[in-house]
Amino acid sequence: MEGKMMDFIKELQNLLPSDRISTNETILEQHSKDESHHEPATPQVVVFPLHTEEISRIMQVASKYRIPVFPFGVGSSLEGHVIPYGGGITIDLSLMDQIVEIRDKDFLVKVQPGVTRSKLNKELKKHGLFFPVDPGADATIGGMAATNASGTTSVRYGIMRDQVRNLEVVLADGTVTHTGNLASKSSSGYHLNSMFVGSEGTLGVFSEITLKVYGIPEAIMAARAIFSEIEDAVNAVASILQAGIPIARCELVDARSVKQVNIYSKTSYQEKPTLFLEFHGNKAGLAQDVEFTKELLVDQGCSDFVFETDSKAVQQLWEARHHLAYAFLHGFPSLDMMITDVCVPISELAGAIIDARQAMDQTGLDGAILGHVGDGNFHTLLMIDKSKKEDIEKADRYNEHLVTYALARGGTCTGEHGVGIGKKKYQKLEHGDALNIMSGIKKMLDPQCILNPDKIIDKY
Amino acid sequence: MEGKMMDFIKELQNLLPSDRISTNETILEQHSKDESHHEPATPQVVVFPLHTEEISRIMQVASKYRIPVFPFGVGSSLEGHVIPYGGGITIDLSLMDQIVEIRDKDFLVKVQPGVTRSKLNKELKKHGLFFPVDPGADATIGGMAATNASGTTSVRYGIMRDQVRNLEVVLADGTVTHTGNLASKSSSGYHLNSMFVGSEGTLGVFSEITLKVYGIPEAIMAARAIFSEIEDAVNAVASILQAGIPIARCELVDARSVKQVNIYSKTSYQEKPTLFLEFHGNKAGLAQDVEFTKELLVDQGCSDFVFETDSKAVQQLWEARHHLAYAFLHGFPSLDMMITDVCVPISELAGAIIDARQAMDQTGLDGAILGHVGDGNFHTLLMIDKSKKEDIEKADRYNEHLVTYALARGGTCTGEHGVGIGKKKYQKLEHGDALNIMSGIKKMLDPQCILNPDKIIDKY
Repeated sequence: MEGKMMDFIKELQNLLPSDRISTNETILEQHSKDESHHEPATPQVVVFPLHTEEISRIMQVASKYRIPVFPFGVGSSLEGHVIPYGGGITIDLSLMDQIVEIRDKDFLVKVQPGVTRSKLNKELKKHGLFFPVDPGADATIGGMAATNASGTTSVRYGIMRDQVRNLEVVLADGTVTHTGNLASKSSSGYHLNSMFVGSEGTLGVFSEITLKVYGIPEAIMAARAIFSEIEDAVNAVASILQAGIPIARCELVDARSVKQVNIYSKTSYQEKPTLFLEFHGNKAGLAQDVEFTKELLVDQGCSDFVFETDSKAVQQLWEARHHLAYAFLHGFPSLDMMITDVCVPISELAGAIIDARQAMDQTGLDGAILGHVGDGNFHTLLMIDKSKKEDIEKADRYNEHLVTYALARGGTCTGEHGVGIGKKKYQKLEHGDALNIMSGIKKMLDPQCILNPDKIIDKY
Repeated sequence: MEGKMMDFIKELQNLLPSDRISTNETILEQHSKDESHHEPATPQVVVFPLHTEEISRIMQVASKYRIPVFPFGVGSSLEGHVIPYGGGITIDLSLMDQIVEIRDKDFLVKVQPGVTRSKLNKELKKHGLFFPVDPGADATIGGMAATNASGTTSVRYGIMRDQVRNLEVVLADGTVTHTGNLASKSSSGYHLNSMFVGSEGTLGVFSEITLKVYGIPEAIMAARAIFSEIEDAVNAVASILQAGIPIARCELVDARSVKQVNIYSKTSYQEKPTLFLEFHGNKAGLAQDVEFTKELLVDQGCSDFVFETDSKAVQQLWEARHHLAYAFLHGFPSLDMMITDVCVPISELAGAIIDARQAMDQTGLDGAILGHVGDGNFHTLLMIDKSKKEDIEKADRYNEHLVTYALARGGTCTGEHGVGIGKKKYQKLEHGDALNIMSGIKKMLDPQCILNPDKIIDKY
């Protein structure tokens, strides 16, 4: 193994200049973890390709020596996706951060995988465009495509899978292929785009991504709606959807979450279950939507409906929401966080959230519940001490309880974070025999099991 | 072969009552063709299952004797999808026409594959819901999922692939599996839903389909916009999209089309390039959208912008559009029709349509151009005499010209009709090496090549 290891590193060193390949301990350590509670592990080497051809050559070396590869963006994954268990080559794509082409008339943009969503939006803004998908972290587009990320705007604009029009993918043997085209729809061949989106680096390495983007709406309005009971807040969201109001964002935070936001962001929001809402559209339509929404929410027990008219207040509202996980991590510097991520049909959401709160209280651990409730997707943030075996066990049992509850009601074990290493054990329960088809696809595309092995599908 | 054939038919006769299996010449003949210009071919037997378990048993027999199966809905496909070339078992799913469950709070409906879109919409209307995808024909939901159909509303609501939340699929060996769940999003496992949608019966037989449905909008407005030049009409549509107006339907018909509509539907529309438009939303928002649209269109050279306020006039407008193909078929009873179906990025659409008209005029054949222009998708209807070899050759060359033009500009050979037998020859040109991945998927799921063989992927 040692000799083989040295040989593949030597070949990679021949491919890349010395400042773009590293076996430095600090660099290896930086690539050993993500933002999850999963155990770290270091790769043998980290490479920093600049273009597709280099990724292809790296894959040829990996394939020749049968060495696992682990694509890496900024390491913001939440289920251990990028952790190189068993070691191998981490392909850090952060230098591939070029926005290759903006086709504003086609609402399309072509980017390299290392472009972050904030960088993309900064550039798009110059063209009156924006890219809506917003996971909490400032993730890379490659990482977001790999996990099929979504966020607060998915209720209106959809998830990553809905935005990806074409992928350039480097396959296990170094072959470069593409999965789509620039047309807004197609019935030609099997739809490979959607199969590769969410494949978490297990089927190929994305080297270029063509995305759908959107015109910045004419008008944006934001509001907070405060409730005494979390169930009322969830039912209120169901009413908004039922009424056909095209809400752009619809986020629930529980009382515990608001308390932590106030501590961290020095805000003074009422510490009660709260919906953070946003509306996009034309001015006349929005005014009617907002008025109608307010009526529906008050009918469902909303005690306060507060418009945020000032753009600074709107920004503060969403920053508070996006920084919630950090608010907990900073509030409890000695603890770690485990985040759950189930998604259920909207009719099952109120029950699922009430059950999640009861089950959390029973663990005795501190934590919060928040969610993209318009999608039926909610997270719990559970504060644990990873050095305590019982905390880990409690968190695992709690996660399993939530997943089992969701699957029994037609839901999924992960709405947006992906499978990685953490949700692999639930794949059979969720997909049944269909997991055999997934395994078959993996084995066909990666016969040597070198593409992010042991993620989603068991190592073979 | 004769003995084997008799044996498999005998086994099927043991499975099914005599009124649900047929070798009657008339029945075979009815299942020998679709609505395309492709040559018919008869199956050896037609079976009419009532539920999933029967499809599974039929597949077990087919698999045991290695006999091809051809799923069939109402036979409205346009590229020969359902034609049983080489013979075998046609599985007519028209008796599986039950709406199994309507979950109105979740905006979901579960149906058997033989339910037609008009039947579904009739039932959904009672719940204030509708299903938007509307290919010209009153196709079955199973057929629409199999071809990834779309239609006039896709610019707003998306295509079949966007609506399918879960499929129950009977695989080649009779195994019953499912591809999704009831959650509005998921990052769990590889996305099989989208791979099976559009697979045209080549990967499995759909036995149950769970679809997203929509609330009937508060207000609907329709309009016609008349132009002197087709290029101006297309550019006007680009302006509407650029302005972020959430148009619900946006159909172009050329002057030749309007002439035929007037003859067939006894209407008196101006015989010029025309956009048929529809807006969905709340009343205040619509008023602003429509006013803004009118301004944009007039800027782009629209000579008349006619509101259709009366609901009967609106219905007549869309019926005229939907019956356009029939208007030509009825107008030329001795001729056949070949329909093309490319889709290009919207910035390439005006050029593509002008080129298509010039190329059509050069063939000397009569025909019309119409399109779902908001999607960049357009059709040409070409009238041919199938008994004349030169007509067939002209039509084939014309189709190839349009496909080559579209592919060179990032488009696709089929926006919504699917591949079937007609577009198979363009798969390599469109997908390149990715076609190998598609072939691999086909071979994994159908090792004996019995599922609608020779469609999309070459027979093996």
